[in-house]
Amino acid sequence: MVGGGNDAFIGAVHRIAARLDDRYELVAGALSSTPEKARASGAALGLPEDRTYDDFKQMAIREARLKNGIEAVAIVTPNHVHYAAAREFLRRGIHVICDKPLTSTMSDARKMFKAAEDSEALFILTHNYTGYPMVRQAREMVANGELGTIRVVQVEYPQDWLTKHEDFKQAAWRTDPERSGAGGSTGDIGTHAHNLACFVTGLTVESLAADLQAFVSGRQLDDNAHVMLRFKGGARGMLWSSQVAPGNENALRIRVYGENGGLEWAQENPNHLWHAPFGEPKRLITRNGAGAGHAAARMSRVPPGHPEGYLEGFANIYSEAAEAITAHRTGQKPASDVTYPTIHDGLRGMQFVDACVRSSSRNAAWVKLPE
Amino acid sequence: MVGGGNDAFIGAVHRIAARLDDRYELVAGALSSTPEKARASGAALGLPEDRTYDDFKQMAIREARLKNGIEAVAIVTPNHVHYAAAREFLRRGIHVICDKPLTSTMSDARKMFKAAEDSEALFILTHNYTGYPMVRQAREMVANGELGTIRVVQVEYPQDWLTKHEDFKQAAWRTDPERSGAGGSTGDIGTHAHNLACFVTGLTVESLAADLQAFVSGRQLDDNAHVMLRFKGGARGMLWSSQVAPGNENALRIRVYGENGGLEWAQENPNHLWHAPFGEPKRLITRNGAGAGHAAARMSRVPPGHPEGYLEGFANIYSEAAEAITAHRTGQKPASDVTYPTIHDGLRGMQFVDACVRSSSRNAAWVKLPE
Amino acid sequence: MVGGGNDAFIGAVHRIAARLDDRYELVAGALSSTPEKARASGAALGLPEDRTYDDFKQMAIREARLKNGIEAVAIVTPNHVHYAAAREFLRRGIHVICDKPLTSTMSDARKMFKAAEDSEALFILTHNYTGYPMVRQAREMVANGELGTIRVVQVEYPQDWLTKHEDFKQAAWRTDPERSGAGGSTGDIGTHAHNLACFVTGLTVESLAADLQAFVSGRQLDDNAHVMLRFKGGARGMLWSSQVAPGNENALRIRVYGENGGLEWAQENPNHLWHAPFGEPKRLITRNGAGAGHAAARMSRVPPGHPEGYLEGFANIYSEAAEAITAHRTGQKPASDVTYPTIHDGLRGMQFVDACVRSSSRNAAWVKLPE
Amino acid sequence: MVGGGNDAFIGAVHRIAARLDDRYELVAGALSSTPEKARASGAALGLPEDRTYDDFKQMAIREARLKNGIEAVAIVTPNHVHYAAAREFLRRGIHVICDKPLTSTMSDARKMFKAAEDSEALFILTHNYTGYPMVRQAREMVANGELGTIRVVQVEYPQDWLTKHEDFKQAAWRTDPERSGAGGSTGDIGTHAHNLACFVTGLTVESLAADLQAFVSGRQLDDNAHVMLRFKGGARGMLWSSQVAPGNENALRIRVYGENGGLEWAQENPNHLWHAPFGEPKRLITRNGAGAGHAAARMSRVPPGHPEGYLEGFANIYSEAAEAITAHRTGQKPASDVTYPTIHDGLRGMQFVDACVRSSSRNAAWVKLPE
Repeated sequence: MVGGGNDAFIGAVHRIAARLDDRYELVAGALSSTPEKARASGAALGLPEDRTYDDFKQMAIREARLKNGIEAVAIVTPNHVHYAAAREFLRRGIHVICDKPLTSTMSDARKMFKAAEDSEALFILTHNYTGYPMVRQAREMVANGELGTIRVVQVEYPQDWLTKHEDFKQAAWRTDPERSGAGGSTGDIGTHAHNLACFVTGLTVESLAADLQAFVSGRQLDDNAHVMLRFKGGARGMLWSSQVAPGNENALRIRVYGENGGLEWAQENPNHLWHAPFGEPKRLITRNGAGAGHAAARMSRVPPGHPEGYLEGFANIYSEAAEAITAHRTGQKPASDVTYPTIHDGLRGMQFVDACVRSSSRNAAWVKLPE
Repeated sequence: MVGGGNDAFIGAVHRIAARLDDRYELVAGALSSTPEKARASGAALGLPEDRTYDDFKQMAIREARLKNGIEAVAIVTPNHVHYAAAREFLRRGIHVICDKPLTSTMSDARKMFKAAEDSEALFILTHNYTGYPMVRQAREMVANGELGTIRVVQVEYPQDWLTKHEDFKQAAWRTDPERSGAGGSTGDIGTHAHNLACFVTGLTVESLAADLQAFVSGRQLDDNAHVMLRFKGGARGMLWSSQVAPGNENALRIRVYGENGGLEWAQENPNHLWHAPFGEPKRLITRNGAGAGHAAARMSRVPPGHPEGYLEGFANIYSEAAEAITAHRTGQKPASDVTYPTIHDGLRGMQFVDACVRSSSRNAAWVKLPE
Repeated sequence: MVGGGNDAFIGAVHRIAARLDDRYELVAGALSSTPEKARASGAALGLPEDRTYDDFKQMAIREARLKNGIEAVAIVTPNHVHYAAAREFLRRGIHVICDKPLTSTMSDARKMFKAAEDSEALFILTHNYTGYPMVRQAREMVANGELGTIRVVQVEYPQDWLTKHEDFKQAAWRTDPERSGAGGSTGDIGTHAHNLACFVTGLTVESLAADLQAFVSGRQLDDNAHVMLRFKGGARGMLWSSQVAPGNENALRIRVYGENGGLEWAQENPNHLWHAPFGEPKRLITRNGAGAGHAAARMSRVPPGHPEGYLEGFANIYSEAAEAITAHRTGQKPASDVTYPTIHDGLRGMQFVDACVRSSSRNAAWVKLPE
Repeated sequence: MVGGGNDAFIGAVHRIAARLDDRYELVAGALSSTPEKARASGAALGLPEDRTYDDFKQMAIREARLKNGIEAVAIVTPNHVHYAAAREFLRRGIHVICDKPLTSTMSDARKMFKAAEDSEALFILTHNYTGYPMVRQAREMVANGELGTIRVVQVEYPQDWLTKHEDFKQAAWRTDPERSGAGGSTGDIGTHAHNLACFVTGLTVESLAADLQAFVSGRQLDDNAHVMLRFKGGARGMLWSSQVAPGNENALRIRVYGENGGLEWAQENPNHLWHAPFGEPKRLITRNGAGAGHAAARMSRVPPGHPEGYLEGFANIYSEAAEAITAHRTGQKPASDVTYPTIHDGLRGMQFVDACVRSSSRNAAWVKLPE
């Protein structure tokens, strides 16, 4: 692991997620940007001293030479370090599991894309929400044509934690353009909403119009964003991301409407999926319950009615990656239903943020996204 | 009553609403555009034969001359007849209670505005959703500064009844530009969403960007609309109206976020109002329950926990109008808390639709609304 | 109307409900037990002076003699006056619409039963919750065998308004055995829960075991009741009524489970009915929406998605009664689907309360209800 | 681990839960009652061959002698094997983590109690629902007196999976008295409901009246149970457990009402806790959100709005046990807020089932539970 030292929230989440299905073992780390903290964090996690590194480059070099060196690395640093770190591992054939968003700048994103393409190693991006069983279920239903042609997508990710002036670490780097990149709410959570909309519908955004705001005075990055979407093929959508909407914790929600029906899913109640076939009563499909199919079932560890959590969704991504890594080890392809966010998804996320910022700077003009 | 003959849905709603608080008596009508149907409908409602009129002009002339002629008229025809009918009554000093939207064309809307201004009679528009007690509650809380400065407004009114090709009367005139005017979903329900956003926040829309679609092939008017809003004073918003969103019946919903808190209300569960003071648990305020204030209480007929309905909300508008009419009769002002949608609201609704259509025709460019 | 003077809550509800569908006109009343208040209340409602009576007996005598005397009377007094009042009208052939519970004592209940049987006039009891469209829907589905044989019924009616020592009028008579009878929460709301369970399932309670409490010290009547039910034919149930459950307003709720499926309905969200066919996803049936049938449709005035309210449910009972009265006028039977609570329901409610009290006084022993 | 071979659901859940916080390592097992399956299961889990045992006694003997033998064992067999297995480990000083209910018979339960008392080792029972953060929150609020004296407890655990004749393994042993013991729904899930009621309120059941049914013909154990509860100190309650309630998956729910307020929590939405202070609006407390306290916070791994799951609740019990085991290792007491279900809880659960069965066999007579 790179990053994820003592007081980092997301590092701990990654470690739990990795452990859940017993497919990973944590054996080495460069856990902080300061050597002292890196060593203290390594000791706290029980890493051997000689595999607790002061920096990620040193780690990549030595682990690549070890007989039993690491097979994969999780990169959970702030966004602006993602690329530099990932590059060192990718060029040495070590698989990279990287936190989202991909990088903090478009320039880095492109370099990351190239580095991943040039490497034999795999690159996995942790858009964890796509690991939820009922998100898989929704995606399967759309793909099976149960809604008919998709017309409208409503997706939103409101939070409230930046309603006031921030004065704590989590907020500090997320509102700092140097470390987060150009997007505030759009980068941190809008990317999730966007990724989810595309993942569920199988559509790609063709163009968008965005209106971004920084409501808290002095804030440099957007803390609220209104976006209208046009998908390839004619579907339309709206996307709202906000960090200043009191009463919302992580209220990621998606609604998809086609010519024959609608779907609705909300992250805070992740085991439920509403399906409204046109002209029939709405149905509540539950994880592993009646009406749920294969795509959800293979992501589930517990029976219906036992709420599976965020960590399990996260772990699913890791396990999908494990499937891919295992197959890769023997030169085989993973099974056809193995799915995880790729470098392409990461790039699209960056393009999305970039387009948001550009559109907004031009008074919400339509901006096309790259093909 | 003008319009509201035998098979008209909204006429019956108006009659119930008028009756609920025993402030009106139905004594005359021009209930249909065809004399035979007008007479049959009058007979069915028990109107005296000599006050069952073939057309609204004849009705206005005669009722104005009668010693005990009508004091007010309800106009519940399709939109394109509103103005011609209202004019005849207004010019004769008879109060007009008119269904929304105001008219079918901007030209008529302006004439209506003038006719109302030139008349001594009152003009009441039935934006019935503003009659809900908890909508009044929300408005009072915003006005009292409980949310602080408003930043973000999310309002939506999705339906699904036009998901497929329509083949029934209610749909016919609502998708016909001649009778409905230029707005489809925007005119029929977007006006409600817009009115509600303004009513609750006390803000006015400064400019907007809209993306309208007619998803059903051959349909002339929009059946789905995505709108971004900029309010005077800096607040921003999104508005979604749709008639092609399967699983939604009349899912009008508003969420308002200020620097100190948020509010959420949904028409399909009208007795509940969520209040999220920033940094405290969300609270569920119920109609007449703990935490509900004067504005809601005076609109309520039943105790908390007994769901008050759509008709009661509708009746509140009528009763507010009755207050105003009664006061007018004696040359007095109604009490200061009497509130009902006015000709100004009607005009603003028309301007809203007009702006939506124009913005959309210009690729969602920003369009300013008149001051 | 008898009772329902100026400050009576339920009288106003009855009057609105009566008016809603334009089937009744209020023309006479004995609105209070004190002549002064009776007259003042009559004047406030616009009743003619000569038909504003000091007491109900005088009213019954004179109205029965008038050429256009009243055809029906609504009795909305406290429970202990129901019988004495109803008797005077029943014996003179005037239909009685009476608030529930039937009377305050079993003795009166039996006399009321006899008086109703001896009279040519109709007797209607306002168990208003049976007027809700989705309650009708649930009943129709059970009757149609959609759940198979019923096994389990869970019904409850918790409130919180008597959590503390009461000091207001509504509470005063409801906690006074002289005026309310032997049941506290059981009489006031447990009767509703019981009636609803029987109405929906078509079953009758064969025996029950009850545990009643008066949690507020000094209170003479139960404010909380736990009841286990055994229905004829083998179904079992639980019933909970409470006036001391903070956070509950009028949280009447019923759940019915059969061998092939389940149903759930809650009064505070009356337009929704959950249907869970075994082995399939749960479905949300909405009033007048897809999946709703004839029984609900004929009780509905507004389209799906517009929440119909408590008053409309109440009005349905009045309108059912109007159907019956109209038919009675001409010696005909009402249509076969006309349904309203009868004297039998009233008696069963009293027997239910009586059984609760007796079982509880015997340490929750099983007590049989009369056939 | 004892039990939990290849096709056992609960064994896998235990292993994940144990792994989640990295406090356990699985090193030995007697995973099945048949040696072949035991070995196959051990191999599948990567256990060393010499620590994959054919039976639990052999395992206990050898592991106790090994220098680095197991410190604790998880027993996840069917109920009737719990005691025989636990005994072997307890007598050799190996801590036991045992699935609930404690045993299948009262006789075994008493022996288990004695064995645990006679041993220096710890005994932990996995009533996993007490590991949910918001259950801890509810308990803390009651203990802090926020509800005042508790009056009423409503607890229920309905399921629907045994609505029809069972024909699969999970159902087979749960409906077999030999392996499950005397309680059907009461033993399998009623114990959870009972344990939860006691855990949250800090009360103990003084007496109860129960009405048990086996609705599916030929079924030997109850599949539905209605129970009225009397708690020491005067509080009353109702408990419903069912396996034949279509539409319910694992709908464990508890509502607690005191003289000053109420609480409501449901397992299928475990991150939410409703708090209704009397006379104020209801509040929705979310895990780690505003209003949540220390007891919930120390059980949480992720921020508010990210739904924590069933597995995490389960893992909390394991981690509490780890705290206790670690402290025990050095002869210290665990921190005062470390909480896990003990042998006492297990015994009380058995007594509860026993009382249910006895009361029911006596027509729901009141049966006292042991002090």
